[in-house]
Amino acid sequence: MNVREDFPILDLTVNGKKLVYFDNAATTQRPLSVIEAVRKYDLEQNGNPHRGSHYLSIKATEVYEGTREKVKSFIGAKSSDEVIFTRNTTESINLVAYSYGMENLKAGDKIIITIAEHHSNLVPWQQVAKVTGSTLHYMYVDKEGRLPSSELDKIDADTKIVACTHMSNVLGTIMPVKAIIDRAHSVGAVAVIDGAQSVPHMKVSVTELDADFFAFSGHKLLSQLGIGVLYGKKELLKSMKPFLFGGDMIEYVHEQETSFNELPYKFEAGTQNVEGAASLSAAIDYINGLGFDKIAEQEMLLTEHALEGMKKLPYINIVGPRDLSERGAVISFTVEGVHPHDVATILDSYGIAVRAGHHCAQPLMRYLGIQASNRASFCFYNTIDEVDYFLGKLGEIRRWMGYGA
Amino acid sequence: MNVREDFPILDLTVNGKKLVYFDNAATTQRPLSVIEAVRKYDLEQNGNPHRGSHYLSIKATEVYEGTREKVKSFIGAKSSDEVIFTRNTTESINLVAYSYGMENLKAGDKIIITIAEHHSNLVPWQQVAKVTGSTLHYMYVDKEGRLPSSELDKIDADTKIVACTHMSNVLGTIMPVKAIIDRAHSVGAVAVIDGAQSVPHMKVSVTELDADFFAFSGHKLLSQLGIGVLYGKKELLKSMKPFLFGGDMIEYVHEQETSFNELPYKFEAGTQNVEGAASLSAAIDYINGLGFDKIAEQEMLLTEHALEGMKKLPYINIVGPRDLSERGAVISFTVEGVHPHDVATILDSYGIAVRAGHHCAQPLMRYLGIQASNRASFCFYNTIDEVDYFLGKLGEIRRWMGYGA
Repeated sequence: MNVREDFPILDLTVNGKKLVYFDNAATTQRPLSVIEAVRKYDLEQNGNPHRGSHYLSIKATEVYEGTREKVKSFIGAKSSDEVIFTRNTTESINLVAYSYGMENLKAGDKIIITIAEHHSNLVPWQQVAKVTGSTLHYMYVDKEGRLPSSELDKIDADTKIVACTHMSNVLGTIMPVKAIIDRAHSVGAVAVIDGAQSVPHMKVSVTELDADFFAFSGHKLLSQLGIGVLYGKKELLKSMKPFLFGGDMIEYVHEQETSFNELPYKFEAGTQNVEGAASLSAAIDYINGLGFDKIAEQEMLLTEHALEGMKKLPYINIVGPRDLSERGAVISFTVEGVHPHDVATILDSYGIAVRAGHHCAQPLMRYLGIQASNRASFCFYNTIDEVDYFLGKLGEIRRWMGYGA
Repeated sequence: MNVREDFPILDLTVNGKKLVYFDNAATTQRPLSVIEAVRKYDLEQNGNPHRGSHYLSIKATEVYEGTREKVKSFIGAKSSDEVIFTRNTTESINLVAYSYGMENLKAGDKIIITIAEHHSNLVPWQQVAKVTGSTLHYMYVDKEGRLPSSELDKIDADTKIVACTHMSNVLGTIMPVKAIIDRAHSVGAVAVIDGAQSVPHMKVSVTELDADFFAFSGHKLLSQLGIGVLYGKKELLKSMKPFLFGGDMIEYVHEQETSFNELPYKFEAGTQNVEGAASLSAAIDYINGLGFDKIAEQEMLLTEHALEGMKKLPYINIVGPRDLSERGAVISFTVEGVHPHDVATILDSYGIAVRAGHHCAQPLMRYLGIQASNRASFCFYNTIDEVDYFLGKLGEIRRWMGYGA
């Protein structure tokens, strides 16, 4: 793909080597159009949105609300009232946990999640369980990190919330979220989908999925940090009490009583991140310009090439599905006899950025019987040459650590 | 002051006229150095902080944690563990309301705030009162918007929280926060100070004030939107339960139990806004470069000139102290016989940006017996010429609306 020139950071020299950025599941890089959109906002459009009767305030409101409309279309929501801006996926899920979970669950109720959840879609549910007296249950993956359909049988009549990642940030597994959502609805539960890893890489329609809540972050989607989205079905959001209290989310404030604003403002207290919105808007434009067909084609090419190459290295253990059709562009792995942090440090010395650690998924790691792993995650701007360079250096790591050829 | 060239947006043409930006209490404009710091981050430093063992992740961590150190010095905190990054002042105060207020108050306890609070330092306390069964009480200002010292007597032995703005965003009044904090401590209450309007304009030392919590926003301080700060005393923050749950704020996560990270990370769940931090860091550098002596001198010159000019217009009612020494660079006013929204629209047609409305302080407006007002708020980059232009146009508004000379 002819996109490298749009991402100048990819030409960076790191430790004397050309940067190979394979930490895209943590945060993606920004194209120039995103950087310029923020600069344009700061130079020509900055005011406090919603509150002003002057030019710059109106401009800022246009940027902010224009982004909401764009997000609505991007994720296939029915109404822009269903698009709430947050800081990140974590805040989006916490909003649901506080305003829906804490209020609607009680002793005897069940929350069902998968063992593959990121802490952001796990720890909030632990807290809801503790506070409400409900119980938290897990659906477990198989040895390759796939969710057996029998695990969905745990979603029973006592279940009130089912929370699931759309794509595991560790395993790369694309989860059967449509089946999970349908099962949740069949017992009257709501389904909360963590889309942080899916939305950047595949076309998502929250309406087709019929998700009740769907959360994602801008910064994994070519946007800047500090902006995230919570999609929620309108009737659910309407029924929920506000989460954060302050300006903008109110209708009338009296000394002892307050009535609250309508959707989506009810959930957006205080001055919001309009630079973040400007950035997210430009990021969506960029992605729409490329199209998900091209994005997926390139990312699958990279993933397949990497997987095939890694399978040939006998001391590399791949975590997650070995079949390409079941996964996204994230490959977690361990190198026998070498600690993941050493692997990352050695690769960094070659300019290659991969993650090492528990990837904010400690229960999954414990379940898989590994303390930590490395993770290479790709974006469409990565190249086959970069993967080859990575595979070559991966092949040298054990020699580096004194294991011989 | 020779700073105009640092703020290119001030050269904007609005409705055919040169922009005169007097909505600085809502959001300030960004100097080029702030815009460039964010661009530099995006082009050379972007990674996911805290989590990586590669160059860009380490760079991002340096930017983020470097800003924390800078904020610590800027507000005179004793430790960077006492500096929590949030989205804005509103979230900062909500964090205290949820993690301190909801947990520590009970029926019979009192929360005392002033009638001059912004909704962000008022609605959260209404909610704490409702949930905990405690009661919310007000200290009232006098006709000029000053807080009589007798009102502090309301802070009694039942009081557990006293929340007060450092400077009113409507009245401009600088509140006697040191006396309020001391009084709060004398009865064993904690003091929560909303510094959104003070920190950009005067040297603040949270340690000298002895504030328990102190909140402010970057975007009123030359920084971008989407980054705010909660300062809290270490022993208080340590004793509090986390607010948002997810990645980074944990130590160990098991399927049913989680132990939490130490300060300040305990309160920062998920990937944080590093662009916001880069921006705040550059903003603090810019302000330190000018120095608060110069900033205050220029802002008081502008405020005095505007106040004197407005006093000469008989149909202008100034809301708040008429004595310069009791106020900051915010002037709320009404024009007899002209609705504030019309005033703002007419001024906007001349390129002048002022606010109209309730300024997120409905209880104060109701108490003052006005439905809405206009507000002109200055920053050091404004000029006496701009104030003169504003005064001239203000003098024409009633004629515009058909009142004759």
